[in-house]
Amino acid sequence: MRVLGIDPGIAIAGFGFIDKEGHKLTPVQYGAIQTEAKTPPEQRLQQIYESACALMDRYKPDSVAVEKLFFNRNVTTAFAVGQARGVIILAAAQRGLPVAEYTPLQVKQAVVGYGKAEKRQVQEMVKMFLKLSAIPKPDDVADALAVAICHAHSVGLSNKINEVTRI
Amino acid sequence: MRVLGIDPGIAIAGFGFIDKEGHKLTPVQYGAIQTEAKTPPEQRLQQIYESACALMDRYKPDSVAVEKLFFNRNVTTAFAVGQARGVIILAAAQRGLPVAEYTPLQVKQAVVGYGKAEKRQVQEMVKMFLKLSAIPKPDDVADALAVAICHAHSVGLSNKINEVTRI
Repeated sequence: MRVLGIDPGIAIAGFGFIDKEGHKLTPVQYGAIQTEAKTPPEQRLQQIYESACALMDRYKPDSVAVEKLFFNRNVTTAFAVGQARGVIILAAAQRGLPVAEYTPLQVKQAVVGYGKAEKRQVQEMVKMFLKLSAIPKPDDVADALAVAICHAHSVGLSNKINEVTRI
Repeated sequence: MRVLGIDPGIAIAGFGFIDKEGHKLTPVQYGAIQTEAKTPPEQRLQQIYESACALMDRYKPDSVAVEKLFFNRNVTTAFAVGQARGVIILAAAQRGLPVAEYTPLQVKQAVVGYGKAEKRQVQEMVKMFLKLSAIPKPDDVADALAVAICHAHSVGLSNKINEVTRI
């Protein structure tokens, strides 16, 4: 199963594709879609949408996972992030990909096992789970991989629950 | 010049096309794109995007005007509205249409001449400007027409300023 994790944003949108086979997680490709502040907002959205489409068409994920909400940010930021998130989710919907949403709390719990974990702890666990030589930069990339890992764990868990239920 | 005004939202997105010839404003088509609460969010975004594309292709506006921000709403709402707004702006960008943004204050000032005008006053002025027999319903449609009128006035004004500058 291949998961695409996204940490959406208008200036930087982190993305990370990971493969899950049994308990094994393998990084496929990760990075960041970046847009210039001087570019008009509508063109930045179009750039994000087109990059998201190109990445999904190239790496063909089975599902997409996105962080749900940043409660600690203000309304203006939420609005801008929401717009970027909207065009990425649209790209997924147009390809018939299921979109899962996780709160930062859920991501931390899944990756570190502790909902109040520090950013650095999450990044260290991402590095460990995916056997990376260094923590990916910028932070948005590590965050995108974290939400992808969260989804991979969560899907594994619900499969296990289904198996138990079936017995 | 044909303007498309949009009041974005995930459940209801109001839209209004108006034509401006000299000082005359004529309504062309207006209404609301509506999506069902029980539909998954990614499909609702896709429905909004596809309806926006279809409307732009059918009524071929020269520019698009969108309300900028709702300062009085909470972060969760801003996020959802932002997503809907993102896919509508994307539809405009893909068609090379300029997107203008106006704050609620600017819309009220342009339509009523008073930034703290009541919602009802804005709606009455929309009805008057466009010679409608009744205030369009739901409120989102009247709001979309108001932002279209704001843009039409604003473009008229900047043309006038350019003419004066050229003398």
